[in-house]
Amino acid sequence: MAKKSSLKIIFLGGLNEVGRNIMVLEKDNNIVVVDCGIMFPDDYLPGIDFLIPDFLYLKKNVDKIRALIITHGHEDHIGAIPFLFRDLKPAKIPIYATRLTLGLIKSKLSSSYFQESDDNSLLNEIDPSKKLHIGPFDMEFFRVNHSIPDGVGIIFRTDIGNIVHSGDFKFDQYPIDGKVTEYAKISNIGQEGVLALFCDSTNAEEKGFTVPERDVGKTLYEKFEQAQKRIIVATFSSHIHRIQQVLDAAKKLDKKVAASGRTMLKTIKIASELGYLKIPDDTVIPITKIDDFPLNKIVMLSTGSQGEPLSTLRKMALAEHPRVKIMKGDMVIISSSPIPGNENAISSTINMLLKQGADVFYESIAGVHVSGHAQQEEIKMMINLVKPYYFIPVHGEYKHRIQCAKLAQSIGMTNEKIIIAQNGDVLKMNDNLCRISGNITLQNIYIDGYGSGNTEDIVLKDRKILSRNGIIMINTIIDSKKSEVIKEADLTLKGIIYMEEFEQIMNEGREIISDAVKKCFDNNMTNTQLIENNIKETFEKFFSKKINARPVIVSRVIDLGKI
Amino acid sequence: MAKKSSLKIIFLGGLNEVGRNIMVLEKDNNIVVVDCGIMFPDDYLPGIDFLIPDFLYLKKNVDKIRALIITHGHEDHIGAIPFLFRDLKPAKIPIYATRLTLGLIKSKLSSSYFQESDDNSLLNEIDPSKKLHIGPFDMEFFRVNHSIPDGVGIIFRTDIGNIVHSGDFKFDQYPIDGKVTEYAKISNIGQEGVLALFCDSTNAEEKGFTVPERDVGKTLYEKFEQAQKRIIVATFSSHIHRIQQVLDAAKKLDKKVAASGRTMLKTIKIASELGYLKIPDDTVIPITKIDDFPLNKIVMLSTGSQGEPLSTLRKMALAEHPRVKIMKGDMVIISSSPIPGNENAISSTINMLLKQGADVFYESIAGVHVSGHAQQEEIKMMINLVKPYYFIPVHGEYKHRIQCAKLAQSIGMTNEKIIIAQNGDVLKMNDNLCRISGNITLQNIYIDGYGSGNTEDIVLKDRKILSRNGIIMINTIIDSKKSEVIKEADLTLKGIIYMEEFEQIMNEGREIISDAVKKCFDNNMTNTQLIENNIKETFEKFFSKKINARPVIVSRVIDLGKI
Repeated sequence: MAKKSSLKIIFLGGLNEVGRNIMVLEKDNNIVVVDCGIMFPDDYLPGIDFLIPDFLYLKKNVDKIRALIITHGHEDHIGAIPFLFRDLKPAKIPIYATRLTLGLIKSKLSSSYFQESDDNSLLNEIDPSKKLHIGPFDMEFFRVNHSIPDGVGIIFRTDIGNIVHSGDFKFDQYPIDGKVTEYAKISNIGQEGVLALFCDSTNAEEKGFTVPERDVGKTLYEKFEQAQKRIIVATFSSHIHRIQQVLDAAKKLDKKVAASGRTMLKTIKIASELGYLKIPDDTVIPITKIDDFPLNKIVMLSTGSQGEPLSTLRKMALAEHPRVKIMKGDMVIISSSPIPGNENAISSTINMLLKQGADVFYESIAGVHVSGHAQQEEIKMMINLVKPYYFIPVHGEYKHRIQCAKLAQSIGMTNEKIIIAQNGDVLKMNDNLCRISGNITLQNIYIDGYGSGNTEDIVLKDRKILSRNGIIMINTIIDSKKSEVIKEADLTLKGIIYMEEFEQIMNEGREIISDAVKKCFDNNMTNTQLIENNIKETFEKFFSKKINARPVIVSRVIDLGKI
Repeated sequence: MAKKSSLKIIFLGGLNEVGRNIMVLEKDNNIVVVDCGIMFPDDYLPGIDFLIPDFLYLKKNVDKIRALIITHGHEDHIGAIPFLFRDLKPAKIPIYATRLTLGLIKSKLSSSYFQESDDNSLLNEIDPSKKLHIGPFDMEFFRVNHSIPDGVGIIFRTDIGNIVHSGDFKFDQYPIDGKVTEYAKISNIGQEGVLALFCDSTNAEEKGFTVPERDVGKTLYEKFEQAQKRIIVATFSSHIHRIQQVLDAAKKLDKKVAASGRTMLKTIKIASELGYLKIPDDTVIPITKIDDFPLNKIVMLSTGSQGEPLSTLRKMALAEHPRVKIMKGDMVIISSSPIPGNENAISSTINMLLKQGADVFYESIAGVHVSGHAQQEEIKMMINLVKPYYFIPVHGEYKHRIQCAKLAQSIGMTNEKIIIAQNGDVLKMNDNLCRISGNITLQNIYIDGYGSGNTEDIVLKDRKILSRNGIIMINTIIDSKKSEVIKEADLTLKGIIYMEEFEQIMNEGREIISDAVKKCFDNNMTNTQLIENNIKETFEKFFSKKINARPVIVSRVIDLGKI
């Protein structure tokens, strides 16, 4: 019998972080990539919009790549696809995803400047009732519940054993679309035998089971019923089921729903066209028509549940929305929970809405949101269904994955069978053996505001120093032939605090610069760059001694003797 | 009968925010100031350490100020005292505070460069069993429970009615120091009649009652008992009762406690010298001695429970602490909850500690902290005890104070008797009447890293643009007499993303600048500043069109014709 080849699994993202999910499976020179998402920075990174995975490994092995499989349509799973396509050009990689996910990817690619229009041929629909065979991988998909419809987990059948990837999941016993997680498929593969389970850890710190989505619907209905004036519901545009419940509650109470926000309108269009969102008759109106109805008949659906600067809700809070001015008695429902880092933006949005007279319902004081990720009892149940030989927590910060590991231990898995991997780790799997066999060094790839640039660490460092300490530019005119300082240094300050003593300090600084230049001449130093450096260092030393601050110093010398 | 003078109450801070607490009472040309705190910025303010109140009103009315009364020793109540003293010089204002609070203020003033040493004569101890008479104010103090010992609320008896200020409070029925909130005093003034209650709103969103501090002690003891190796407890240095419970649990289990962190050591010293912290025999050791004991006998008390960059815990997490290297099995207890804005810093600290092998217990997964602020039932009880005619929620963001107002409504107060004031508002009170009669415009006073400077909004704006978009400096040498560009513009970039197209763009930019200068000459424009502006505007337009970015542009022109 021929020796079976091993399976390599490489994490290019999604570990040590929430977001940037991407996992590479490689066997017999065949690569299948699972998910390809972006991540929002958790530290303050000035000017940075998001991070994408480092695709270098995929670039180098582009000839092996057979498919990109996407579990669901959230940005942290699909957002980096245009960048992957850009980096792998001219190669074209087929994408496999369920229908809604595919719709969202299509819209993303068509609005992206990386993509030629004919690449839609690369988009293949996953039908979870059918199997998919690519190279050495026999794949089967099981539907899961999540905060976006059409999510799946993946079963990879290979000659060395079965691998299960949970996707982002939770269990909802009576979901809005009626599509309960396909427990039977999970249970069947568990009985067949599973070498390794890769499991969503995002909510591993949360006790118990997630509250069903329908309970949010009940709360929304109650609030809608109480509302005396207009209602504004802010939620994620991808949360189709939440939007469905808003529409349904409005319909029952004979209210009209007007959506606003670019992504909200786009997602509603895609989801309803594909049949994932059922828009009740006589319920949706354009935002331009809201003044044609009584105040208590209006529901607005908006973006901005995370306090995003340019979102509809933020504009309303700032009283800058062109159409909607908040009135006393308007009801605002923020139907989401804060993504870590956004707490202050959300709080300030709430404060401003309250000041304008709105009644605001949000997570701390009302049951208007439930999470899309499995909590502790669901994670344990997933493990008990799959009964894996190895357990590998994925998706989430280190602390989430450690908690997820503890859950596995709590139901009897031994420590040696639980693997806490890092981004870049290469897992090697043979029959009944799974171990970290190496690590690929990954770069942080930052995507800056203007889209095409990847920001480097050095630029970020510069920006941080600039922002904390400001900048001083020194222009000095000299004549090296005459060994003269022609004009005292010109100092320009930006981002530096004005202090009364400054005039005095700056005068002194100019003298010190002149002295430094003279000293250069005394030492027969006439190289412009050397003089520039000399000025920079001298001034830096002087300034930091004077006011204990370290701004960026830029020194330029004009040498008239050399013009 | 002579007409009674009205009482003015002015909020210079503490509303619309958590922190920067300060309230001014003014009657018959007598001013009493309550608290004088700092606030940490909630948005990202580059380089800013904290904000202080705008003292302009107090400067203008310095001759009327009779006293500064401090309710307790937290930074958001005492932190700005040195700045107040600096601004009111040469006037000297007597401070009144309880013993521990006074100890902390003394230490703050002695380490402050604003203060002459002889000003200790200004420090007066409040004995809560005694009344205090200053000008038209008869003051009585009632002890409250909080997350620092020795906190008080204040009763002001005036000829127009009684005013009650709750201070920062909660109710703890069996506090660590045995000093239960003085309910009788509060209840007595309630029976006497109260015109207005100013009430802590910080935790008005939290249901029920606060959990007693002793319950944290029990959890700490259990964790200490389980620990196989060293224990590190991070908490606020001012949380004397928490520290007491750490010491007591250690003593019972025959463990040794080593404190580290500058503020932690300082506060422990002050609190134990003043009798607020009882250090058990044979329990405390210097951090230099920890290696002399078995691992399971060591407890370290550290700062850094908010993930602060230079704190002991953060250094340990980064493996940069000079003495303590985290070992597998060390137990870290983060005994605090995140202050909004610090979530990510705390999470990353936890992640790093876990990676080094520590077991980490923190709020999401363990009962190792309780808050120091009254929750909903306690706030309602305070209102029912005081039975005020007017209710004015203070301390907290707008949303907290709105929630606090709703609590008052829920127990029967009518809307007209609840006042939601803003910073700068002037409340005017007469017999049975209280209304907002005006508003003083307040500036945000930012305190920058190097201490003495107050940063202005314009500097912050510059810093933000610098950090997001970087800066381009343009140096151009011309000769206006000859109408010539002597040397093509020199462009220096900082904090700007490098792109392949840049060289091309910069070359084009230099040409455009030369053209702009020539156009100036053609129009007989020779004023250097006008030419500089012209270059700036031309380049700005060109660059934003090219790469859709808006860096700061600084343009300097050297005119050889004018030297």
